[in-house]
Amino acid sequence: MDGRYDIAIIGSGPAGLSAAINSKIRNKNIIIFWNSDLSRKLITAPIINNYLGFHNVTGIQLKQEFESHISNMGIKLNYEKVNAVYAMGDYYSLMVNEKMYEATAVIIATGIEFDKPIKGEQELLGKGVGYCATCDAPLYKSKTVSIIAYNKDGEEEADFVSELAEKVYYIPMYSGELNINSSIEVIKDIPLEIIGAERVELLKLKNSEIKTDGVFILKNSVAPDQLVPGIIIEQGHIKVDRNMNTNIPGCFAAGDCTGKPYQYLKSAGEGQVAALNAVLYIDSIKNKK
Amino acid sequence: MDGRYDIAIIGSGPAGLSAAINSKIRNKNIIIFWNSDLSRKLITAPIINNYLGFHNVTGIQLKQEFESHISNMGIKLNYEKVNAVYAMGDYYSLMVNEKMYEATAVIIATGIEFDKPIKGEQELLGKGVGYCATCDAPLYKSKTVSIIAYNKDGEEEADFVSELAEKVYYIPMYSGELNINSSIEVIKDIPLEIIGAERVELLKLKNSEIKTDGVFILKNSVAPDQLVPGIIIEQGHIKVDRNMNTNIPGCFAAGDCTGKPYQYLKSAGEGQVAALNAVLYIDSIKNKK
Repeated sequence: MDGRYDIAIIGSGPAGLSAAINSKIRNKNIIIFWNSDLSRKLITAPIINNYLGFHNVTGIQLKQEFESHISNMGIKLNYEKVNAVYAMGDYYSLMVNEKMYEATAVIIATGIEFDKPIKGEQELLGKGVGYCATCDAPLYKSKTVSIIAYNKDGEEEADFVSELAEKVYYIPMYSGELNINSSIEVIKDIPLEIIGAERVELLKLKNSEIKTDGVFILKNSVAPDQLVPGIIIEQGHIKVDRNMNTNIPGCFAAGDCTGKPYQYLKSAGEGQVAALNAVLYIDSIKNKK
Repeated sequence: MDGRYDIAIIGSGPAGLSAAINSKIRNKNIIIFWNSDLSRKLITAPIINNYLGFHNVTGIQLKQEFESHISNMGIKLNYEKVNAVYAMGDYYSLMVNEKMYEATAVIIATGIEFDKPIKGEQELLGKGVGYCATCDAPLYKSKTVSIIAYNKDGEEEADFVSELAEKVYYIPMYSGELNINSSIEVIKDIPLEIIGAERVELLKLKNSEIKTDGVFILKNSVAPDQLVPGIIIEQGHIKVDRNMNTNIPGCFAAGDCTGKPYQYLKSAGEGQVAALNAVLYIDSIKNKK
């Protein structure tokens, strides 16, 4: 176990950051997992007028204000990807590649833009399909592995896998130059379907097919019900009440992942509500003991 | 009728202001009713760290940022007090002293600090007890009227009433110098109970009693269920769903009046959600016609 926290926050958009500052103000020991740009949605906004207090700012300017706020409060972002969150009773286990963190409460603030599953992906999950190449690489010693990567971080994982596997195919779903081991075969094609009877046998792409023992799909973010098994989704969003409780006690959600409107200020407000209710939840757990 | 609007917003704290900017961005014709300090709660905050984007600011600084935001967007605040909001089917009537405004949708953002009713006030409401002195003054020609005022605005109303009534008592519930007609008798005492069998007969104060035909109570804000007859209150707050709908179609609520936590960012987020759903509501009404 690599660390125990009061509150783990997954996501670094306005909901996650607001949850972080509000948890910190209440003296909670937090860990916040982020994406490299804080929020891809935020930085691409040309002009923002509807976040009360900031008029006529660009997404990048607002991002800078957010960064300066959290940095002034001594909040450090943890650049790791959470693959799964398991409810363990009175705490949560967060699987983060080869690491495992624990937290008393969890706030899901992963946004709404998650990469859609490929045909066959969900059916063969755990049967050759995985989301964490570094975790499962040892299973593929002397075997063939295909890695579908949605961002540059996949390159490091591919390098690691290539040291163990017999053969690694790398299918980048992003543009830009690649920087990977020369032993890895790069396939520039679009994955259509993962095929296999009992286990993965074949990855079918638009213009080719790969015989493969395993497929790792390294996404920007995973759907909430893949991230937190058992969480209730309603019409594509995590079901929450007015206190941002999900159906799992101690697991809160905030921001776009909880529903429309998809707006920064709405998300930030919800992050605050989620954090303050997470604090109440933690105190109630402590009082029971 | 003194004006017809798409959206009427009652309250000028973070919820009301956020509702205003978001309605304006969607090209809605709005009217926003405010208190003289935007939000009494906001300006008294010594230091605010939990509004994402602003670190280590005073309430007054944040208020200035809000003011600059709305003023940059050409939003003008209407310094009048709404006494009652009536649902008329597909629009609302807002009673504002001697004026009446109409709006297709209403957003209640009146906060949580409303002055508590005096004993007998609710029982004798409409039977000599009223909230709008200027509206009802003609009923008290040649009679005795007592005015309990929670802020300086009551002085102007008292002057107006004194031109019609035989005798006016003025009970200021605030400190500071008074500037009222010399014919008005000022009573510096604490009101305890309004007494009367069928109608108001007596105002009982801590150290005295006044025989009176009417009692006007000029509050800073009135409880939501007095403001909007028929609105459902749950545990002291306006009942809303995740879209900030109240039980009355087209009537939304946001901010402290909808429940805890009482926080600026939560309120601002809710103001945004209320505004965007009010816009959807207005569009749905238009499409029906």
